Amino acid sequence: MNKRKIINDPVYGFIKVPFDLLYDIIEHPYFQRLRRIKQLGLTHLVYPGAMHTRFQHALGAMHLMSSAVDVLRSKDQSITDVESEAVHAAILLHDIGHGPFSHVLENSLVNGISHEEISLIFMEKLNKEFNGRLEIAISIFKNTYPKKFLHQLVSSQLDMDRLDYLKRDSFFTGVTEGVIGSDRIIKMLDIDNDRLVVESKGIYSIEKFLIARRLMYWQVYLHKTALAAEKMLIHIMQRARELISNGETLFGPPNLLYFLSQQTTVSNFKTENHTLDFFALLDDDDIMSSIKIWTLHSDIILSTLAKGVINRQLCRIELGKEPIDKNRQEAFKEKVLKHYHLNNLEEAAYFVFSDTISNTAYNTKDERINIKYGTGQILDISAASDMLNLTILDKTIEKYYLCYPKSISF
Amino acid sequence: MNKRKIINDPVYGFIKVPFDLLYDIIEHPYFQRLRRIKQLGLTHLVYPGAMHTRFQHALGAMHLMSSAVDVLRSKDQSITDVESEAVHAAILLHDIGHGPFSHVLENSLVNGISHEEISLIFMEKLNKEFNGRLEIAISIFKNTYPKKFLHQLVSSQLDMDRLDYLKRDSFFTGVTEGVIGSDRIIKMLDIDNDRLVVESKGIYSIEKFLIARRLMYWQVYLHKTALAAEKMLIHIMQRARELISNGETLFGPPNLLYFLSQQTTVSNFKTENHTLDFFALLDDDDIMSSIKIWTLHSDIILSTLAKGVINRQLCRIELGKEPIDKNRQEAFKEKVLKHYHLNNLEEAAYFVFSDTISNTAYNTKDERINIKYGTGQILDISAASDMLNLTILDKTIEKYYLCYPKSISF
Amino acid sequence: MNKRKIINDPVYGFIKVPFDLLYDIIEHPYFQRLRRIKQLGLTHLVYPGAMHTRFQHALGAMHLMSSAVDVLRSKDQSITDVESEAVHAAILLHDIGHGPFSHVLENSLVNGISHEEISLIFMEKLNKEFNGRLEIAISIFKNTYPKKFLHQLVSSQLDMDRLDYLKRDSFFTGVTEGVIGSDRIIKMLDIDNDRLVVESKGIYSIEKFLIARRLMYWQVYLHKTALAAEKMLIHIMQRARELISNGETLFGPPNLLYFLSQQTTVSNFKTENHTLDFFALLDDDDIMSSIKIWTLHSDIILSTLAKGVINRQLCRIELGKEPIDKNRQEAFKEKVLKHYHLNNLEEAAYFVFSDTISNTAYNTKDERINIKYGTGQILDISAASDMLNLTILDKTIEKYYLCYPKSISF
Amino acid sequence: MNKRKIINDPVYGFIKVPFDLLYDIIEHPYFQRLRRIKQLGLTHLVYPGAMHTRFQHALGAMHLMSSAVDVLRSKDQSITDVESEAVHAAILLHDIGHGPFSHVLENSLVNGISHEEISLIFMEKLNKEFNGRLEIAISIFKNTYPKKFLHQLVSSQLDMDRLDYLKRDSFFTGVTEGVIGSDRIIKMLDIDNDRLVVESKGIYSIEKFLIARRLMYWQVYLHKTALAAEKMLIHIMQRARELISNGETLFGPPNLLYFLSQQTTVSNFKTENHTLDFFALLDDDDIMSSIKIWTLHSDIILSTLAKGVINRQLCRIELGKEPIDKNRQEAFKEKVLKHYHLNNLEEAAYFVFSDTISNTAYNTKDERINIKYGTGQILDISAASDMLNLTILDKTIEKYYLCYPKSISF
Repeated sequence: MNKRKIINDPVYGFIKVPFDLLYDIIEHPYFQRLRRIKQLGLTHLVYPGAMHTRFQHALGAMHLMSSAVDVLRSKDQSITDVESEAVHAAILLHDIGHGPFSHVLENSLVNGISHEEISLIFMEKLNKEFNGRLEIAISIFKNTYPKKFLHQLVSSQLDMDRLDYLKRDSFFTGVTEGVIGSDRIIKMLDIDNDRLVVESKGIYSIEKFLIARRLMYWQVYLHKTALAAEKMLIHIMQRARELISNGETLFGPPNLLYFLSQQTTVSNFKTENHTLDFFALLDDDDIMSSIKIWTLHSDIILSTLAKGVINRQLCRIELGKEPIDKNRQEAFKEKVLKHYHLNNLEEAAYFVFSDTISNTAYNTKDERINIKYGTGQILDISAASDMLNLTILDKTIEKYYLCYPKSISF
Repeated sequence: MNKRKIINDPVYGFIKVPFDLLYDIIEHPYFQRLRRIKQLGLTHLVYPGAMHTRFQHALGAMHLMSSAVDVLRSKDQSITDVESEAVHAAILLHDIGHGPFSHVLENSLVNGISHEEISLIFMEKLNKEFNGRLEIAISIFKNTYPKKFLHQLVSSQLDMDRLDYLKRDSFFTGVTEGVIGSDRIIKMLDIDNDRLVVESKGIYSIEKFLIARRLMYWQVYLHKTALAAEKMLIHIMQRARELISNGETLFGPPNLLYFLSQQTTVSNFKTENHTLDFFALLDDDDIMSSIKIWTLHSDIILSTLAKGVINRQLCRIELGKEPIDKNRQEAFKEKVLKHYHLNNLEEAAYFVFSDTISNTAYNTKDERINIKYGTGQILDISAASDMLNLTILDKTIEKYYLCYPKSISF
Repeated sequence: MNKRKIINDPVYGFIKVPFDLLYDIIEHPYFQRLRRIKQLGLTHLVYPGAMHTRFQHALGAMHLMSSAVDVLRSKDQSITDVESEAVHAAILLHDIGHGPFSHVLENSLVNGISHEEISLIFMEKLNKEFNGRLEIAISIFKNTYPKKFLHQLVSSQLDMDRLDYLKRDSFFTGVTEGVIGSDRIIKMLDIDNDRLVVESKGIYSIEKFLIARRLMYWQVYLHKTALAAEKMLIHIMQRARELISNGETLFGPPNLLYFLSQQTTVSNFKTENHTLDFFALLDDDDIMSSIKIWTLHSDIILSTLAKGVINRQLCRIELGKEPIDKNRQEAFKEKVLKHYHLNNLEEAAYFVFSDTISNTAYNTKDERINIKYGTGQILDISAASDMLNLTILDKTIEKYYLCYPKSISF
Repeated sequence: MNKRKIINDPVYGFIKVPFDLLYDIIEHPYFQRLRRIKQLGLTHLVYPGAMHTRFQHALGAMHLMSSAVDVLRSKDQSITDVESEAVHAAILLHDIGHGPFSHVLENSLVNGISHEEISLIFMEKLNKEFNGRLEIAISIFKNTYPKKFLHQLVSSQLDMDRLDYLKRDSFFTGVTEGVIGSDRIIKMLDIDNDRLVVESKGIYSIEKFLIARRLMYWQVYLHKTALAAEKMLIHIMQRARELISNGETLFGPPNLLYFLSQQTTVSNFKTENHTLDFFALLDDDDIMSSIKIWTLHSDIILSTLAKGVINRQLCRIELGKEPIDKNRQEAFKEKVLKHYHLNNLEEAAYFVFSDTISNTAYNTKDERINIKYGTGQILDISAASDMLNLTILDKTIEKYYLCYPKSISF
């Protein structure tokens, strides 16, 4: 069979699918589903260009993996063809477990299962379908494969996942300052003692990468308006679940209603076939199509929040370095209680809420980014760089936010 | 009120919203709905980057309009502030009447109404809400405003619509060869006798624009695989309508079922308020969410086609310069009839079908692209260019295609 | 020896030098000299970005050659490693014979020798130095190597030379409309019967390439202001030669004065070692440094023209489709004669002159661009394209120009 | 007179010349001379794309000035048309005093005069020619104009000079990681108490700008190979000066020999007209054309160094955080002394030398980059940023280097 092997990509130009197995994975409905899951959830409400999907990201990360394998082989590091296929498959599938709006609803539809765990469940299902051809890919993904650096290419502080998403997200949001030199970084990769390392002349690129990543966090991933939208979407799901448990009927496709009508845990996925089947049918479109109808629902909480997300009438969000004034928050709740004729302050909490967000530029507790010198010496980036200061880089920056309807602001 | 006026755009960097009225239009739910309508229908099944929406396009066209107004004013052409606001509003709203998947379903959900007519209905509704502030915008859109060149900026062979969509579509598909020099073309615009003209030194840019447009047609807009997907989607809607009229129950949001259960014509829009209301709730998400459930339907035609679109298992399409061999087509239908155990050849026609597609690079029957020389002479581009040949440019290129399931191919 | 093998390039990002031999060629003083020869002569007087050099272009063309070899091999076309090295060397050296300002002074410093002939002389000299390792490269360059398609990659209507220079020149001039999809074109290359062919789905890219090439000709390569500057530079050289032959002393480095003091023909290059040595020392810098001093010379013709080029006080140039009015030209000469107190009309011809320029988009007398269909059929692009018309494409467009000092214009 | 007002630029697309005065400045031979001075000296020996000139940079900085003036006016800051013209003229002329290879030869050809002082001498000369129309521009440049923020736009830690050169240099070197969001930074500019400030939401862009600037320093401006080349060029000039003072004859244009035959100080510029005249004739081309002939000179020091720069046979350079081992350096000198049969160790010092280079990311002793909050509070970037640490940012990073011929390395 003649398999189309070149895919156009606005970020890299052309993406080549280097193995038939990868092509078969891409063609599978599980993978096609990623076309309907936006990479950045509701961020497009702030950056209209950010409509790109997990599908594009997975292909992009696979493309970078090809470069990385080429570079490492050119430095006489051994990667067999079987390992190359496997590490490509692992990166292609690393996000297959994402649900609607990626991270946004990660804990709203299912309970206590991360998207990585669901990815693994999908991979094991696919492995059966593909007669065990994903065995090594799975062991790389789980980091049980002997050559540890292969796992690092899939998941570490300098993996192909990050190198693609930073570049891609800055491309589609138009936040050009987030653009990283993924090409240059990959060209500087090497292996030392089964660990991924970066040649010392790549040190400025790594500094830049860490700073760009941080910039993208504050400017895009934790953008306060997108955050407001995403919290509202989570509250919509919570309210819908509450109404359903109270016996109300909500419009929605059966696959969505399935997850809203019960608590789904990892054991459901493992013991019932239909849980994974339903999950595999679920994507952004179901959420949007349903909450659009919910804008007409008689429940004022559900319909108000749904209108907010659909029509981009978002709540106001205050973000700062100081903890939220709880008295002020309670006063807002009282106002909301009256404004919407709610029953109690618990209901008001759907509209008025606070929490913290945080980001760490470089986590020293994770695997380090190692810099390799001509002398053979290996230093952690935070020691190698004369700019970046470990104590600062490693510090978790925490911010506090308070969200409330614009209509009730003083 | 402090209105956010700068929007990030991956194509142009920043887009400024130059009038408060425009900001109010953008905030309106009618306009926000365009966020959920992909500019290029199902083209993303071929070019995964093509997830961009009518929302982004409308903002982009507005951005180019600002440049055009600046350029024309710098050449001492009179455009008042009121006219500037109006022509910006007109371009912003020119596509507001698009339904799900833009052109794809244009004749599947409503009958005998173009998206331009629906745009006008929306504009008139908005005009009431905005207390008549869209009066001039509407007259420009309808070409009843005295300064005819303003309409040309909104709708002509060199309007801001085309200048944006060619650039944007080539950007997001990654087909870089379609990139046009919209900046340069706009810089060359002028007015002569109330007509838009292009300064003669812009002639090569116009040639390039016409060639790029043609390239985009054959490489993107009429790409055979995307065409197959779109025809399948149309057939899905036809089958759904047929099943509903036969009394079958289909899952779907009420807004979608409304349009599938009846023939909606222009008179419905004009006489019944709820028709426009329902239409304003309808977008890509409803279609996708519904047909995903239809993949499980007992009707083999509906479920097979739905699976095809959802899982990208598209029918084979042959495209060529020769008319389709009707005997071969009939033989395919017979095979399909047997393969799917259908009732008759009419049903087989859901899977096996043929038609023509065509494109004209430059339509001499439309308003011409006029080139203005230093001497004051005005020539049509086809006369001014020593490269482009009127008889070729004006020729409608017609191609024939035949679609059939891959499973039945010999 | 550890050879640096990656070079940064603003057009392609990174350029890899795939063979040690190529690295040694690049390091050679003959090749380093190309750093001092601008790719586009004096075009930077119109497009200030166009400071790029033959050095950059040669590396870029080598980079595309790597892609082309990869693509052809992936289609099971046989190219041995030795052949790959040779075809890379051939493209790297194809322009090594260019003199100052590339094409501009091609017939001013030496007589009756094209830059290709000088390239060959350089290659043969280098071949001796490299102990015959350039033997195959030279035979590919001269088209005496059995596999003819290798020569086509170096020199044909779709060679790596053109694919690089169109892309590079449009990049540095900022004429973005000239950008071609060299990536896509290369991906579509194949070999049929020892000829380079393009797969049929690449047809629109080829159309676009031909149109972009034509646009670059009229907008950049034959830009009338750059043309005026280049003609003035040629006249400066002619006047300098005339003054020297009359016994006047001119400032200049000995290598330049050598070529201005005599007629250098191919036999000088072949019989005298120092001719090539002197030529190898000559570049743009010598011309500019010398004519800057000539701005102070007592000869009014030399100093006026030199000031013109140095200070960008260029003569006026009229360009059109009609032949020049000889009476008007003679009247201009009379005016110039008086204005500058010249001795005769021959001297006035240094300031007032006319000629023609021409361009052919696609030369059917050259080797054709062949399109290969899935059926195996091969068609010339002019037959394969439904847009491009042979009779038009093949037509040589001729334009007439008249140049004269701005000071004497009526 | 009809003045061409749009210039193509590969970085920004189009550059508009907003005032006739600016056009007249650009046309002046003093300004045209900047076409022959490369922005980055000999950096193109490492990054072949870096052929761009001071001419392009000055136009680019002027272009950004237009944006800055527009932005500030849109925020109701008062800038009169006269002031706008003046601040544009000031930025256009800020680098007019640069000599050959920009900073490289700044202290080799003239003594104790910075390029800024020479810029001022040029401006005053031009001011006379333009009948005092540069009066305000000069007072802005000298920071004697009452509105101090205008000077800051021309010269400060966030001036249009830096915003252009970082973007431009990263563009032409191909070091894409140095790309800064100059657009976004300019959009965030405002004035507070006659000081330039940045709106607080621009804080991440400023962080990124400081990091990108630092990256460009270490990766480009202080690249060790370019540094080696530049030091060699300086040594060539020193040796030439020494030989001339010893009565030897060197080839060279009179303008270059003038500066090599004497010590030129600021008083020469002020008291003798011909000093400025000669300087205005001097550029990169004179240096390159002359040292190319010097490659043939009998002085082994001069010819060896000249060959090194011309043919890119550069000395080896070791760069590190540790001071140079003086014994090792002396041993190298002894080896060189023997290798080249030199007369003494002073001569060996032409080939073997060491020094330090340093860079400060953000100089707290200079005018600060001020961040303005919605509350009206103004904070220095180092206080406002939770990432950047004053004690680190402000620290001057010093590195030590040792240069010596490759031929003598152990």
